[in-house]
Amino acid sequence: MAQTKFMLDEEEIPKAWYNIQADLPTPLAPPLNPATKKPIGPEDLAPIFPMELIKQEVSTERWIPIPEEVREVYRLWRPSPLYRAVRLERALKTPAKIYYKWEGVSPPGSHKPNTAVAQAYFNMKEGVERLATETGAGQWGSALAFGTRLFGLKCTVYMVHVSYDQKPYRRIMMESWGAECIPSPSERTEYGKKVLKEDPKCPGSLGIAISEAIEDAAKHEDTKYSLGSVLNHVLLHQTVVGLEAKKQFELAGDYPDVMFGCVGGGSNFSGAVFPFLADKLTGKNPELKAVACEPKACPTLTKGLYMYDHGDTARMTPLIMMYTLGHGFIPPPIHAGGLRYHGDAPLLCKLVKEKVVDATAYHQNEVFKAAITFAQTEGILVAPETAHCVKGAIDEALRCKETGEEKIIFFANSGHGHFDLAAYDSYLRGKLIDYEYSSESVKEALKKVPKV
Amino acid sequence: MAQTKFMLDEEEIPKAWYNIQADLPTPLAPPLNPATKKPIGPEDLAPIFPMELIKQEVSTERWIPIPEEVREVYRLWRPSPLYRAVRLERALKTPAKIYYKWEGVSPPGSHKPNTAVAQAYFNMKEGVERLATETGAGQWGSALAFGTRLFGLKCTVYMVHVSYDQKPYRRIMMESWGAECIPSPSERTEYGKKVLKEDPKCPGSLGIAISEAIEDAAKHEDTKYSLGSVLNHVLLHQTVVGLEAKKQFELAGDYPDVMFGCVGGGSNFSGAVFPFLADKLTGKNPELKAVACEPKACPTLTKGLYMYDHGDTARMTPLIMMYTLGHGFIPPPIHAGGLRYHGDAPLLCKLVKEKVVDATAYHQNEVFKAAITFAQTEGILVAPETAHCVKGAIDEALRCKETGEEKIIFFANSGHGHFDLAAYDSYLRGKLIDYEYSSESVKEALKKVPKV
Repeated sequence: MAQTKFMLDEEEIPKAWYNIQADLPTPLAPPLNPATKKPIGPEDLAPIFPMELIKQEVSTERWIPIPEEVREVYRLWRPSPLYRAVRLERALKTPAKIYYKWEGVSPPGSHKPNTAVAQAYFNMKEGVERLATETGAGQWGSALAFGTRLFGLKCTVYMVHVSYDQKPYRRIMMESWGAECIPSPSERTEYGKKVLKEDPKCPGSLGIAISEAIEDAAKHEDTKYSLGSVLNHVLLHQTVVGLEAKKQFELAGDYPDVMFGCVGGGSNFSGAVFPFLADKLTGKNPELKAVACEPKACPTLTKGLYMYDHGDTARMTPLIMMYTLGHGFIPPPIHAGGLRYHGDAPLLCKLVKEKVVDATAYHQNEVFKAAITFAQTEGILVAPETAHCVKGAIDEALRCKETGEEKIIFFANSGHGHFDLAAYDSYLRGKLIDYEYSSESVKEALKKVPKV
Repeated sequence: MAQTKFMLDEEEIPKAWYNIQADLPTPLAPPLNPATKKPIGPEDLAPIFPMELIKQEVSTERWIPIPEEVREVYRLWRPSPLYRAVRLERALKTPAKIYYKWEGVSPPGSHKPNTAVAQAYFNMKEGVERLATETGAGQWGSALAFGTRLFGLKCTVYMVHVSYDQKPYRRIMMESWGAECIPSPSERTEYGKKVLKEDPKCPGSLGIAISEAIEDAAKHEDTKYSLGSVLNHVLLHQTVVGLEAKKQFELAGDYPDVMFGCVGGGSNFSGAVFPFLADKLTGKNPELKAVACEPKACPTLTKGLYMYDHGDTARMTPLIMMYTLGHGFIPPPIHAGGLRYHGDAPLLCKLVKEKVVDATAYHQNEVFKAAITFAQTEGILVAPETAHCVKGAIDEALRCKETGEEKIIFFANSGHGHFDLAAYDSYLRGKLIDYEYSSESVKEALKKVPKV
């Protein structure tokens, strides 16, 4: 029997995050002020982010030290296990080896707390007393509720009203950790009041919730804003995943040939893959293949344009250079809510643009079929988002079965699906719809992107 | 910073289960045939259990080997971590050290698969093709669905109808692992048909579901029955928990002074504690204290009588010697559904009777208060059942704070509460009722226990 899990001692939690900006062939295009179209500076971000995170955002240092207090919290679930999916390999009759890094062991159940904890810490160090953020189904909100609690910060989460009503479980998680969870649009902010005045029954949207959280942070001296993906410092914090995985692959005596991760904003994929891509960018391992997996219903990397656009639908953020479907694009209601984002992290987009990273897209039925195969062999019920890269890994293993290649396949198993079982139910009952994205509506949305 | 987690390599998964029957001062009273009041023999059990499990049920061998194929499945999540609750200790300002064994890392999220996997294996070895069982909220049913799947057995779960409708998530888990989940009472069995004829809208009960599952197994040549707690062989399989914990305490350089576990049927408590109690029974460590934690709404060990009674409400099982509130006792609807059992495992009851094990009972509000303290320090949202022994451990740590004792406290953290968040919500909103058990109804129920 081959070894199933590769574990590290908690002393081996990384002591520094890996910053891929140090190894980019050319620097990132800077974010632009939407009014002046000039690059923004630290002073533009200071009202909503603490200085240390602003520094990390633009740093080109290869290694950013992880404070001991953050490593102490990471010990609650890190190092996370690297699994070899022996039973899945056997069921697929593939000569390939399949490995996955399992982030579902964190208390909020995903990779998200890797950055939530770090952000809470740096804010606490600069005297911030409260963090405000937005959440859709609650994945990010619950991670931040957890992270802030451990450093004694207060936390206010603006949760999209329709999710607040329909998906109470993550709201209860947030409240159990002591966070305040507010259905958005709310009467707490000027923007929320304005929206409610126009439409008292507004179900809310992530765009509106972002606007409320930013306004809350900008207006209150003791409060900052926190974002769960897209930004450089968020991707940076997630590299603990890939750094651990590299050590664990050494224990296994293997190194991945091809890596899969799902992409919504890009932090999960980047966290797991960037530390390996370092070897590709520095010429140590030019053959490494990395594939970003996204939904066909929201095909940002596979069908979007590489250009400056707003990060949010409410057009409050700077313009950032990325693949985008247009900030006004509204994707169909697939179950993988975390992958319904019109853009992607600038760092990841640049690597796709430069063909360092590949991208592929799937429909939800084939994705859930892969998730069921995984559940019935390896036991774990993954989140619908994660299921996208399970599909990528299984397809690659089946290709190897045809060619006889003994490839080493890796995927980032970013979280469990305990709060997504209704989606499994729909799949099992044949009720899941494979939405095509509308190229017409993308065309329309792209027209509204400001010219730079 | 003290070490947080004590991990074992997967080679250190125990190679044998510990059978406490070898170390009992006097043997267990035998189960009796309810008609003849004579001890039952293997032939009485053969229609519903495979021979190997019947042998384990009565064995007095100290060590029962764990088959390699079972250990291979255990590798999917075992060895589970032993945690030191450093943050909880700090918050309580206690000089005590608090350790917990975390079983929520299993795919079904609790300790239950430790026996589900073993039972599926031994049935498979004897040519059984399908297992039938009952489930209330779905904790046990999902563990058996998982266990049977990994050995290629079919699984039929009779789920209490009202839970089937109101708590769909564990039903979907079972179906995702390939099990068939049937609302009980059903048209599948004669007993179910009879119940439905009398009351077509019957919401079902665990007693009815047990009867249907046993009838299904007894009637079909290829099918056996499976039980998730109470029986000796179930407790035996759970000792992997305590055996691992003993090795992990060695790594930590500690040994528990006092151990807490919640008790519904008794398999969780017994699995974690029996391997340590071996040291008490054999005189190596006579001072060890072990405390079984139960709800005040169903106080079997603290208020029940030690006598022969049926294991089920439908009076289909043999008579077993145990603490009981009477098989007809219907406990109030507390959220810890797994602790609403009128009896307890005969092995555990005997140890309580002989004062080797202590017992204590709590109300739900104090239990949830402890669970919130735990969640806000250690991150994990435990199941309502588990919360009972979190309460026990916290109280002990606070006593140590007063006395200055540096005790080593252990509790069995048996599972997560991801499907019990509505209970947390009730607690946080002040809507949780502290039910008193009715001593009148216990008196009535005890009157109906057959005389032996």
